[in-house]
Amino acid sequence: MRNKNSAPTMKDVALEAGVALGTVSKVINGLPVGESYRIRVEEAIKKLNYQVNSYAQGLKSSRTYTIALLIPNTLNPFFSKLAYQINLSLLKRKYRMLLCCTDSDPGLEQEYITMAQQNKVDGIIGLTYNPDLHIMENIPYISIDRTMGSHIPCIASDNFAGGQMAAEKLADLGCKNVAFLRVGSSLTNEPNKRKAGFENGCLARDLQYTSKILEDGYSLNEFEIFLTEHMHNGKLDFDGLFCVTDLIAYEVLKMLKKLNIKVPEDVQVIGFDGIRMFGDGDYICSTIVQPVQDIAEMCVELLLQENMTAKPPLVCLPVSYMYGGTTKESAERQD
Amino acid sequence: MRNKNSAPTMKDVALEAGVALGTVSKVINGLPVGESYRIRVEEAIKKLNYQVNSYAQGLKSSRTYTIALLIPNTLNPFFSKLAYQINLSLLKRKYRMLLCCTDSDPGLEQEYITMAQQNKVDGIIGLTYNPDLHIMENIPYISIDRTMGSHIPCIASDNFAGGQMAAEKLADLGCKNVAFLRVGSSLTNEPNKRKAGFENGCLARDLQYTSKILEDGYSLNEFEIFLTEHMHNGKLDFDGLFCVTDLIAYEVLKMLKKLNIKVPEDVQVIGFDGIRMFGDGDYICSTIVQPVQDIAEMCVELLLQENMTAKPPLVCLPVSYMYGGTTKESAERQD
Repeated sequence: MRNKNSAPTMKDVALEAGVALGTVSKVINGLPVGESYRIRVEEAIKKLNYQVNSYAQGLKSSRTYTIALLIPNTLNPFFSKLAYQINLSLLKRKYRMLLCCTDSDPGLEQEYITMAQQNKVDGIIGLTYNPDLHIMENIPYISIDRTMGSHIPCIASDNFAGGQMAAEKLADLGCKNVAFLRVGSSLTNEPNKRKAGFENGCLARDLQYTSKILEDGYSLNEFEIFLTEHMHNGKLDFDGLFCVTDLIAYEVLKMLKKLNIKVPEDVQVIGFDGIRMFGDGDYICSTIVQPVQDIAEMCVELLLQENMTAKPPLVCLPVSYMYGGTTKESAERQD
Repeated sequence: MRNKNSAPTMKDVALEAGVALGTVSKVINGLPVGESYRIRVEEAIKKLNYQVNSYAQGLKSSRTYTIALLIPNTLNPFFSKLAYQINLSLLKRKYRMLLCCTDSDPGLEQEYITMAQQNKVDGIIGLTYNPDLHIMENIPYISIDRTMGSHIPCIASDNFAGGQMAAEKLADLGCKNVAFLRVGSSLTNEPNKRKAGFENGCLARDLQYTSKILEDGYSLNEFEIFLTEHMHNGKLDFDGLFCVTDLIAYEVLKMLKKLNIKVPEDVQVIGFDGIRMFGDGDYICSTIVQPVQDIAEMCVELLLQENMTAKPPLVCLPVSYMYGGTTKESAERQD
């Protein structure tokens, strides 16, 4: 007899329906089975209140315990850290990870999605810049940094809050006149919100601000021209710069050096991402750090969570500020 | 009738032997089949001179087209570039890659080797620091940077030549008295040869040299003490330093800055690895560059090459020198 206090198992359902265990499995997995058997199993499931979550645990016969990660490359330190953390999160749960670096061949993305459709992988975590990517409704897919429709959860840093945090930090550190430097992307993606957050923060803190946005494909040298145009008598008009990525901050720091402008004495610089030397060493600049480990864990958690009938369409995870030598170290709040 | 000018196919063997195609396949794959059938198939193979390479192409029924990469992590830029290049080399050949970052759990390595044994993956490329790892003879395995017995090919940079190149470069750039800075590893691995190569180069070029070797686990601060001990009247005794990795070079450059020693004016510094900012940007220091793309391609090439009866036990691939701001740019040979 079944212990009434424990959750019913598939075996309980089989006993109740008077059918073999395999028949219950077939019904649950939607495989063909005689109509009278199907009805008996469904009635037993209803009567015992057999939970969907039990189905997921042991029954899906085609489970591969393999997840594919689609990512442009693992050269960029943000991507390589993401790949590392997602790998750890999956291995912790005894899942294997197929890595697919996609930047060399956009067709690869669709190929891996087809694999998911054919149940050769259980699901996909994707960070893609391909606007034409078609993801079928029934494929477990988690997107990073880009919303792809309400049926696909998107996980990202709280980019808006990060932009706002950068503005507030510069204000706290005594800046009065700041600039935002960004390379634009034509794609709608979450990192685009950094600009709106920054402007919001500047307005809230009465910070005067200027934006310099380069279109995709423009040379970063444009920033040097912009900075030179904003110099008078060897001094930069700005006392604070927010660069939309650490990569841009790094390039801008080289330009400032050439222009003989001292960091952080003359101008303070904040980047975004939290890139560290050699993966886990020094920060390259003062920066808004993306919570890569939390992003990875949330992607895996949501992807493998089969009991949710409604998955959240957008999850924004909290960022943090980290000193990295390009701002004044001891902050005195000005307000 | 078979065209005599084309290579014989499995079908030709079946016709010649008077057996079904499946029987030929079984014989080739070593599966049980009646003795008389086996003999007929083997005779037909011999008569037609049916090539082993044809076996490999289409017959191994358990082929998964999946290779596992075991690597400590993808945080370290050398590892992340290696993972990227191996991934590209595999995808180019329509192979999938399981990524397994092993540093969090050494038991994982053995688990993936078991997968290979059970034909769940076709082979393994491994960069491991686990001295107890047991790899069975029959498993296709390629090792990076560490020799693991003659049955397992090891692919590495030509570390000896790289050490020698560093010494010669410092001599070419006018150095007279140099030092070698290294953190030791107790494992026998290929990168250990950098020291011997460097010493060899110093002897060949009449360069005076000193070595400072830290045991695994020692603090890098020991290098700062070493450098301070070799300073007289605010000047360093050495005019050249060879650091065994770019990571150590990076830390040493910070120490030299603290000690008010100018690079490259007072002392020139060469690292090893070829690490670049953001994966493909500036070199961190002047460096001996590991040919990561060639290493990746060779690993994949040798792993998937099933027709070789003897695989090379050790392959050393040529390195190159790259200027990265910590040596004098225009070299005048001194000899």
